[in-house]
Amino acid sequence: MNSKEDKDLSRLCIHTITTKPWQIEEAAKNFAEAGVEGITVWRDALEGRNIKLTGKLLREHDLTIVSLCRGGFFPAKDLNKRKLAIDDNRRAIDEAVELGTSMIVLVCGADPSQPLEESRKQIRDGIAAILPEAAVAGVKLAIEPLHPMYADTRSAINTLAQANDLAEGLNSPSVGVAIDVYHVWWDPSLEKEIKRCGANGNLLAFHICDWKVPTSDLLLDRTLMGEGCIPIKQIRSLVEAAGFTGFNEVEIFSTEYWKYDQAEFLKKIITAYKEHS
Amino acid sequence: MNSKEDKDLSRLCIHTITTKPWQIEEAAKNFAEAGVEGITVWRDALEGRNIKLTGKLLREHDLTIVSLCRGGFFPAKDLNKRKLAIDDNRRAIDEAVELGTSMIVLVCGADPSQPLEESRKQIRDGIAAILPEAAVAGVKLAIEPLHPMYADTRSAINTLAQANDLAEGLNSPSVGVAIDVYHVWWDPSLEKEIKRCGANGNLLAFHICDWKVPTSDLLLDRTLMGEGCIPIKQIRSLVEAAGFTGFNEVEIFSTEYWKYDQAEFLKKIITAYKEHS
Repeated sequence: MNSKEDKDLSRLCIHTITTKPWQIEEAAKNFAEAGVEGITVWRDALEGRNIKLTGKLLREHDLTIVSLCRGGFFPAKDLNKRKLAIDDNRRAIDEAVELGTSMIVLVCGADPSQPLEESRKQIRDGIAAILPEAAVAGVKLAIEPLHPMYADTRSAINTLAQANDLAEGLNSPSVGVAIDVYHVWWDPSLEKEIKRCGANGNLLAFHICDWKVPTSDLLLDRTLMGEGCIPIKQIRSLVEAAGFTGFNEVEIFSTEYWKYDQAEFLKKIITAYKEHS
Repeated sequence: MNSKEDKDLSRLCIHTITTKPWQIEEAAKNFAEAGVEGITVWRDALEGRNIKLTGKLLREHDLTIVSLCRGGFFPAKDLNKRKLAIDDNRRAIDEAVELGTSMIVLVCGADPSQPLEESRKQIRDGIAAILPEAAVAGVKLAIEPLHPMYADTRSAINTLAQANDLAEGLNSPSVGVAIDVYHVWWDPSLEKEIKRCGANGNLLAFHICDWKVPTSDLLLDRTLMGEGCIPIKQIRSLVEAAGFTGFNEVEIFSTEYWKYDQAEFLKKIITAYKEHS
């Protein structure tokens, strides 16, 4: 059987950062050969490359380019830094268009030298500032709530309720939400907020991985589905019940797995995807 | 000026774990000499000691024994383990009585091999099981919501809203809530939930420390007030506006500070307390 015919993988997407040791050309070839149908591209993977040609290459491998990761990081106490962040987000929109993807994931940012409320305001203002360009470009901005352990420097949007509030407040067809099980699994309001997100047409993306027990690093110790304690299948069923029909995107930052032979790791990802998500 | 007359310190309490390298007798003497008026005792600090005599010693230093840390860890997939946990919590109540304190802080626990909802049910049942003994002993049980990054093994109660729900549901004068800035500072509902906690008479304890930027360890990398990004003064003012008049308890787990000369560290704690809380 040609692995491309394996329907189990028809909604599997892998983030380039997941197999970070691979160059994007190598990742694309290997993903495609394994039957993976989606890829989310991290901006660092595009460095030094012609973005249009890279997009073309990915499509030649029959890969759907699910999203560009990542825009955001809007808050800064310093006005000039906030302007630079908005410029950078406009560049991300251009890059998304060149690459040929219709979604950018936003890691919203936070500045620990100012109150969270201030960072939250600047996030809203930053997204509002780039909305016109996003709309013209046909690119959707997916606000990803980040785990509260990242509230210091990575995101002041730490719950799905906040992301829903923000998306609803901006009230634009170009803004929605990306749900990553790693960030939201602990949330007692999860079921309610997933329903709300879907009901309002804001559920744009779904990221999966697992929470390792114990976790030794706040950022780079995620693990494969089934190797941790997140009820991934249950969350996926909530997301699908809320109307989501997009890709299940495997996004794993793991110092440990990056040391592995990446071809072996890809096999493990596919097995874990089939069995535990 | 006798440091005991320094009114700034009249509501300062330090947890024995904060100056972990000191034996409790040494901590008591040094806290008292520095003008600190409260101590919270971790159970490990009592190991191999006569608890009554230790309590007497602390009182001879004019220290108020604010609480015993910690009970809890109720959830377990295995029924026998849950029974053992309840037995251990009953022992904690006995120890609190022997020590002469009227409060036990509960770190509620979580078992990553079962759903969070199940752990939450077992926490409620566990507290309900020991409530009669707590009431007879005159010991209050303070439910401490823990940061969501501890939802895997330390606590399935991860927001102040959940702790408030749980305390209100149990509806007993022997149950309340302990608020630690480290666990709740990120929460967009914080102000509302602190008000609710105070209004319902459930605000029993207030713990302070700071969130280091960056944080290198999920458990043992807390820092001194003023050295991180938590708006401690603001949260303290919310807690006091909600009617809290108890001690401000310094609870810092820090591999780094435990390596310091503890007498120097104590001076730093006092300065940080005066300037940043």
